[in-house]
Amino acid sequence: MDTLLMNAFWSEIIGTATLILLGAGVVANVILPKTKGFDGGWLLINFGWGLGVFAGVFAAYKSGAHLNPAVTIGLFSADMPFYSVTGPGGAVTATIEPTVGNMFMYFAAEMIGAFIGAVLAFLAYKKHFDLEAPGATKLAVFSTGPEVRSYTWNFITEVLATFVLVFFVVVSGKTPSGLGPLGVALIVVAIGASLGGPTGYAINPARDLGPRIAHAILPIKGKGSSDWSYSWVPVAGPLVGGVIAGLVGAAYS
Amino acid sequence: MDTLLMNAFWSEIIGTATLILLGAGVVANVILPKTKGFDGGWLLINFGWGLGVFAGVFAAYKSGAHLNPAVTIGLFSADMPFYSVTGPGGAVTATIEPTVGNMFMYFAAEMIGAFIGAVLAFLAYKKHFDLEAPGATKLAVFSTGPEVRSYTWNFITEVLATFVLVFFVVVSGKTPSGLGPLGVALIVVAIGASLGGPTGYAINPARDLGPRIAHAILPIKGKGSSDWSYSWVPVAGPLVGGVIAGLVGAAYS
Amino acid sequence: MDTLLMNAFWSEIIGTATLILLGAGVVANVILPKTKGFDGGWLLINFGWGLGVFAGVFAAYKSGAHLNPAVTIGLFSADMPFYSVTGPGGAVTATIEPTVGNMFMYFAAEMIGAFIGAVLAFLAYKKHFDLEAPGATKLAVFSTGPEVRSYTWNFITEVLATFVLVFFVVVSGKTPSGLGPLGVALIVVAIGASLGGPTGYAINPARDLGPRIAHAILPIKGKGSSDWSYSWVPVAGPLVGGVIAGLVGAAYS
Amino acid sequence: MDTLLMNAFWSEIIGTATLILLGAGVVANVILPKTKGFDGGWLLINFGWGLGVFAGVFAAYKSGAHLNPAVTIGLFSADMPFYSVTGPGGAVTATIEPTVGNMFMYFAAEMIGAFIGAVLAFLAYKKHFDLEAPGATKLAVFSTGPEVRSYTWNFITEVLATFVLVFFVVVSGKTPSGLGPLGVALIVVAIGASLGGPTGYAINPARDLGPRIAHAILPIKGKGSSDWSYSWVPVAGPLVGGVIAGLVGAAYS
Repeated sequence: MDTLLMNAFWSEIIGTATLILLGAGVVANVILPKTKGFDGGWLLINFGWGLGVFAGVFAAYKSGAHLNPAVTIGLFSADMPFYSVTGPGGAVTATIEPTVGNMFMYFAAEMIGAFIGAVLAFLAYKKHFDLEAPGATKLAVFSTGPEVRSYTWNFITEVLATFVLVFFVVVSGKTPSGLGPLGVALIVVAIGASLGGPTGYAINPARDLGPRIAHAILPIKGKGSSDWSYSWVPVAGPLVGGVIAGLVGAAYS
Repeated sequence: MDTLLMNAFWSEIIGTATLILLGAGVVANVILPKTKGFDGGWLLINFGWGLGVFAGVFAAYKSGAHLNPAVTIGLFSADMPFYSVTGPGGAVTATIEPTVGNMFMYFAAEMIGAFIGAVLAFLAYKKHFDLEAPGATKLAVFSTGPEVRSYTWNFITEVLATFVLVFFVVVSGKTPSGLGPLGVALIVVAIGASLGGPTGYAINPARDLGPRIAHAILPIKGKGSSDWSYSWVPVAGPLVGGVIAGLVGAAYS
Repeated sequence: MDTLLMNAFWSEIIGTATLILLGAGVVANVILPKTKGFDGGWLLINFGWGLGVFAGVFAAYKSGAHLNPAVTIGLFSADMPFYSVTGPGGAVTATIEPTVGNMFMYFAAEMIGAFIGAVLAFLAYKKHFDLEAPGATKLAVFSTGPEVRSYTWNFITEVLATFVLVFFVVVSGKTPSGLGPLGVALIVVAIGASLGGPTGYAINPARDLGPRIAHAILPIKGKGSSDWSYSWVPVAGPLVGGVIAGLVGAAYS
Repeated sequence: MDTLLMNAFWSEIIGTATLILLGAGVVANVILPKTKGFDGGWLLINFGWGLGVFAGVFAAYKSGAHLNPAVTIGLFSADMPFYSVTGPGGAVTATIEPTVGNMFMYFAAEMIGAFIGAVLAFLAYKKHFDLEAPGATKLAVFSTGPEVRSYTWNFITEVLATFVLVFFVVVSGKTPSGLGPLGVALIVVAIGASLGGPTGYAINPARDLGPRIAHAILPIKGKGSSDWSYSWVPVAGPLVGGVIAGLVGAAYS
């Protein structure tokens, strides 16, 4: 593995870990007992996740900051490079190409990062996990779950929400702005506010599956089921949404 | 129809659909039963719509991102081009001129996009629309309605609120900033926070009429009236506000 | 009066009217009966005022967008130009100098704009002003009032809060950013969130006095006292804070 | 002491005082009795602190705006200059080097500034401190305290939260954006939203210790313990987190 790809691998791990530390953290803050932010509301959760993306993108500056297999597969579908190094004057001097091998490299790093982030969030809130709370509440810090369970409709919601994210990633370069990573962060706030109501907006297979594995493994006091029967929805939905957005975005651009 | 205009047509459809998917979505999240964001507050709704504009503007990068007949008619009134293509060095290489024909093209695309966005928001929240809720609540996901019904005063409120939006669109180019689409998004947050209290800030005929048609057509469980008697206010108010803002803005600039 | 100054006069009127329309509007939305944003919380009010500044600054692009006598007197104290016109290449081609005469011109325009903005906000919320509510509530849409009345301490709070605003205005040019008008808008959000608790953060004599005059004059149903005994605090406090910030800022820079 | 360092000393004092005035202020607004923002929620507190950083960074434009010993020691650990003066064309013309002596200079200025800011916040809310409230509430305006007391786990939470902040400071220069001071401000909002739940996110020894000293000294009516037994956690945790982030960030970059 060459240095560029090795760096990107670490970069995705660090960035995704940052995302999940902050994302799982804000949920812990709002739903675990005796926290400062208890019952702080949905907008707080939306900003926590959106700014988690913000922090994660800065951290992952060596890989294009996908932080999300749906983004990776979307760029793959759109045949856009995963990452471009630009030299002085803005010329591209090296790229990580959207190959199947590189895609799986990114997937792996994103999963590892998400797992690590979930463990760190658990440590940050350890004393609150030790308190009495329903198993479903403790799981909700890690992974998403639907309010009205319906695999078909939950899947559709995740496809739609992820489409908005990945379509933005594919087309946003066409609009000049000085926002840097704030653009995608605000899109994630938007998706949470607007499309997070039914399923809690996984919109990222690693964001859901990595922490779910952490939930299954970690010694969480009074922990309940990891709800594996639902776990395929927040993986498959975002992947399908990402592919569609990549194809549509590429056709549109 | 030439390629530039055809692209703009698609661009307005996609951008307005994105806007309404997210805008109707946030209302669904706050008012439909059993959602994650239930009772999440007015600021959540304001950010949802504002960031819906943010996402929609990025999506509609081939048309100047009006997303709103009030903006289109405002630019027409100010005799400003609907869209300018800039080549390397910033020189304008092509424009869509503010003709009556082009104006109606934009109107049509915005209406189509708004209708599509409303259908998508319905699909995203399908299982929550299936739950028991008042007909007025279900309509409120799609279209605005006044808190105190008074056609005259509701109309005045919509004129004032739309004036703020379109005046910003006309004059904002005079102030340098690197905010890109965030500027208009924050103006929409502002209008919602400050002037949305009486009527729910349609400030966009397509945003209100397109989804109202969708409401009338879609098989929504337990749906009530589409409130057609009010429907002219959020169409006429924004158009009048847009024209005034275009004329005043052009005189001021 | 030359054209530059005449334009600045109109610019301050339009910008301050925009500010107060949105600022008074958000308070109306949160405290008047039967509004969509009723009881929407302090952060909603903070964003409403902050984004009111944002909109007002864009509108007032021909005058340097003071919108506030405390800013004007602060720039006067710092001996900084009220407004600079820059030509191609960024060279300053004309300025409005910080003379006493120009200062009073700005004061007058800001007062006129604030009065107009208050009238417009009244019109936007007319049907809600017609409803039953305490006189103090209706006044609070227009002007600030302290939670614990103490002229001395209320004055100190206004001095401190205005110092933060005007010090920012004086020194912010030293820090590069692409935020444009968003910088000062966020400072106003900050001041509201942090220092608005005791007095409601007038931090602007025109913002308080102009609407108070409007309150006294307008035919508001069931209106009570305009509380003139307090009215000098939100005028004198911000002026003193502005002068101190101008002097300290100039010495520091 | 040369002029550059003397200016930086004053700059850190002014910037940190601004930060703490606004940061302590927002807590006072949310928890002291009879304030406008009473019970305004965690997101209000997060924005208050984040925008306090925003204002403080603009104020401290002559020192690199650390405002925080954890940032200073993090840059020291990463062997990055504390402050660089750039001339025309962007060339660095002078720097404050990361020496032990300079580090202690920065520490001292940050502590002095934090103390001053806490005194100013006390003055701004004087009449509300005079009202009846638990001693712990009054202390909470000044300094952080844990929800579940556990020196070990509270320490870990502070290390993690500070790591996110200082790692951002070290690596954010690699990602182009026009956000200026808004970047770090939003990271502080993020940390508060996501990792502030257990301990109230000191993430800054000066932010906690300076105001705690002010609390001990000031004549606050009905004041209780300054909780010195906890006071080492929000000093040691952030310093350790800052050192780790500096080392890891330097190795990563």
